[in-house]
Amino acid sequence: MFEQLCIIGVGLIGGSIARAAKAQGLCKQVVAYGGDKHLPNLQRALALGVIDGFHTDIGAALNGSDCVIVATPVGTLPAIFSAMQPFWNSQTIYSDVGSTKASVVEAARSVFGDVPSNFVPAHPIAGAERSGVEASTADLFNDRRLIITPLDDTDTAAVEKLSEFWRRIGSRVALMSVEHHDTVLAATSHLPHILAFALVAMLGRKDEQHEIFKYAAGGFKDFSRIASSDPTMWRDICLANKDELIPLLQQFQAELGQIERRLQNGDAQALFDTFSYARQARQRFLDTFDDHS
Amino acid sequence: MFEQLCIIGVGLIGGSIARAAKAQGLCKQVVAYGGDKHLPNLQRALALGVIDGFHTDIGAALNGSDCVIVATPVGTLPAIFSAMQPFWNSQTIYSDVGSTKASVVEAARSVFGDVPSNFVPAHPIAGAERSGVEASTADLFNDRRLIITPLDDTDTAAVEKLSEFWRRIGSRVALMSVEHHDTVLAATSHLPHILAFALVAMLGRKDEQHEIFKYAAGGFKDFSRIASSDPTMWRDICLANKDELIPLLQQFQAELGQIERRLQNGDAQALFDTFSYARQARQRFLDTFDDHS
Repeated sequence: MFEQLCIIGVGLIGGSIARAAKAQGLCKQVVAYGGDKHLPNLQRALALGVIDGFHTDIGAALNGSDCVIVATPVGTLPAIFSAMQPFWNSQTIYSDVGSTKASVVEAARSVFGDVPSNFVPAHPIAGAERSGVEASTADLFNDRRLIITPLDDTDTAAVEKLSEFWRRIGSRVALMSVEHHDTVLAATSHLPHILAFALVAMLGRKDEQHEIFKYAAGGFKDFSRIASSDPTMWRDICLANKDELIPLLQQFQAELGQIERRLQNGDAQALFDTFSYARQARQRFLDTFDDHS
Repeated sequence: MFEQLCIIGVGLIGGSIARAAKAQGLCKQVVAYGGDKHLPNLQRALALGVIDGFHTDIGAALNGSDCVIVATPVGTLPAIFSAMQPFWNSQTIYSDVGSTKASVVEAARSVFGDVPSNFVPAHPIAGAERSGVEASTADLFNDRRLIITPLDDTDTAAVEKLSEFWRRIGSRVALMSVEHHDTVLAATSHLPHILAFALVAMLGRKDEQHEIFKYAAGGFKDFSRIASSDPTMWRDICLANKDELIPLLQQFQAELGQIERRLQNGDAQALFDTFSYARQARQRFLDTFDDHS
């Protein structure tokens, strides 16, 4: 499918793309780029067989690559695009894996003027609380969703080829607008991560913290799992999508304030109605998406 | 261990206690009590072999029972205690499974004056988003924690015998004060349930709700699982423990307000610090309690 796949940033996601592409025979070789400070990580990726080679010079890594996927935290994208610009090749397909798309498009626009038509913004909805190349697996994207957010000018053939690439490593590909993606992901992913981080941080400061964690029931353990996610990545995501997140955070605080008043007033019926509505909403969607989506 | 175990309320928890006691041979027979409106449920429990018999007359159910466990939602405890009072037997051990202990003790005190010394307040930290006797299993309490909150007057022999009962159905038994229990559980269980209910209810009202649930990633799915918990049970728990919950809800809103301001101000370092602190707190406790607790 590709001669040489170049992965910029070989962490959990980048490493898993490399492993999956090799496992499915989608490219002849995988090279990686990382800055000097990432040298130990690149060496580890090579030793693990995740990649076939690496460069700490971005021009060398891009040279001969007909598909380039940027898999670094979204906060680094402006600098990465700037470094890539001198080597930009109209025959190559470029993509990314950022969890926020408006910020990625904005970064591309700030560097290139117009977003290049051979840059295809993408986001695999997969991850884990672990991070780093050691956590990467060839099946991370299996049966997971991959969202592509093409712009008006994005090359259709590039979108189709990248879609096929992701499908062949197991993903279920969908297309939507940048704005819609960021609205939906703020609700379904970014806000829940903030809630988990905030709850675990708050409880971790309490005198009873030892017993709080000791007696944590199943629900809280599930809930708090995502608080182990990479703090750098999530700092970048939250800042990049803050225009969507801030109103949601305000709405959620209002929601909690309402529940607080219902508790104060002993308004049993209203509490029951809210809990019941939530249970029904979840059941409705479990029924609709009963396909391990 | 017991001649006749009486379960008041044969749902997920009561049914699982009955199944486990029978499986471990801890009693000769299990009888159940439920009001007339629960007749179909009692018949189902009998047909499933969860119980050996049932009564819709509480006196008949209590007669000959040397261990009685109340497993109805905590909001029903005042009425249940009143109904039990005429048949109270000093030779019997009474207990409950309520998720809030101050409210249970208060209900007992309001009916009996002093809390009877042969009533042992208890709380198994086990459950599932499913409910009802059909969901009950003999191993629900296996390797789960069971907290007993004895009062100063509670009979020591009764506490020891009930502890032994729970240990023999797989639980890891701990003793703590009523107040401490309610503080810890508000943080670790009740607040997370409110957050899950509130989040799913809020997102379920949005125009994008269909896609929000469709593209829900692993974290949100785990997070929202507990929003399928029984609304009646959780309404009662939240109201019963509102004195602990209201301050926690206020603290959590303040925590979210702080994160919101940090997003507004683009304060990347402070966001990183919070997320990082949470991740480390969770890791600390995973290391400490790496025993599937």
